Amino acid sequence: MKIIIVGATGTMGKYLTSVLENEHEIIKVASKDSDINTDITSVESIEQMFKQVGPFDALLSTAGPTYVGPWKMLTDKEFRKGMEGKMMGQINLVLIGQHYINPKGSFTLITGALTNEPQINFANASAANGAVEGFVRGAAIELQNGIRINAVSPTVIEDSPQYFPYFPGEIPTTMRQLEYMFRKSIFGASTGHIITP
Amino acid sequence: MKIIIVGATGTMGKYLTSVLENEHEIIKVASKDSDINTDITSVESIEQMFKQVGPFDALLSTAGPTYVGPWKMLTDKEFRKGMEGKMMGQINLVLIGQHYINPKGSFTLITGALTNEPQINFANASAANGAVEGFVRGAAIELQNGIRINAVSPTVIEDSPQYFPYFPGEIPTTMRQLEYMFRKSIFGASTGHIITP
Repeated sequence: MKIIIVGATGTMGKYLTSVLENEHEIIKVASKDSDINTDITSVESIEQMFKQVGPFDALLSTAGPTYVGPWKMLTDKEFRKGMEGKMMGQINLVLIGQHYINPKGSFTLITGALTNEPQINFANASAANGAVEGFVRGAAIELQNGIRINAVSPTVIEDSPQYFPYFPGEIPTTMRQLEYMFRKSIFGASTGHIITP
Repeated sequence: MKIIIVGATGTMGKYLTSVLENEHEIIKVASKDSDINTDITSVESIEQMFKQVGPFDALLSTAGPTYVGPWKMLTDKEFRKGMEGKMMGQINLVLIGQHYINPKGSFTLITGALTNEPQINFANASAANGAVEGFVRGAAIELQNGIRINAVSPTVIEDSPQYFPYFPGEIPTTMRQLEYMFRKSIFGASTGHIITP
């Protein structure tokens, strides 16, 4: 399979690349230092990336900037970080990518436990995740040619221990669990699912 | 109680006004033809509205423009209708209104069954609803002074039969059910809940 990994230079993206690149052709996409540098907050940049990649079989996204910080600093301006990044960025990967993906291809977006399990400082991520999950369910019944879409929703990531203090009581998702959640979406048959550890 | 109803000129807003105005002081807010005309896609307009209202005890929102229409027409541009309207409009009512609401006051936003039960033509609403529901859960653990926040999530509304054909199999929410969902949020004690019929 030809698989695009968006967010390929991050903790999750690097791991997913390492476990999939022996079996598949991986196109690494990130804001910099990747095969194709792309700004997912720009529809022109996304369009250009897909044109360069050509037909593909699966797109995995682990990309999603959001505002993390004190509630009292959270105004419309900061809120738009998650809206443009994790939300519209990922949604536009699908709205545009559907015209380039092969029949029976799949999109797998990233959300997270914050959708349903809020934590202090992360209201923006809860909203962005909720939007992406609603979109995944809505898009699953619209996409044509057998194209599927799912979201992977991990808890705090095992290899990002710097976040553990912000997620009290949250059992970390191991890198192996993360890999298998993405495998379920790419190689399984489900669509419109929110895949949890 | 002093209660702001945003979307007061719509089907839901008019009904809620009629059942609450005998017991409470109602401030009707809508884009036009209301006590205070407000554009909820503008933070300046929202701020101006709250300044004019002064301290209040509850805000109910039934306002939420989204893009409804064929998936193939749904691009970034159309998607922003629901983002700016039902999503950021309602979120900004809370981010700004928290500075004007009385202690122990409540915010009640509107979402809908489309969050979890998608229908053809409504992917934008599924995403906007999901965002608002994630935000409600995130905000509930951040708001201070006993201020609460919930979402009311009806199915298709009894008094909007023109939408029935777009919601096959969805049992309509009666106006009385809608009223009681809002009553649970305003007069109950829960916070961070998504209230369903």
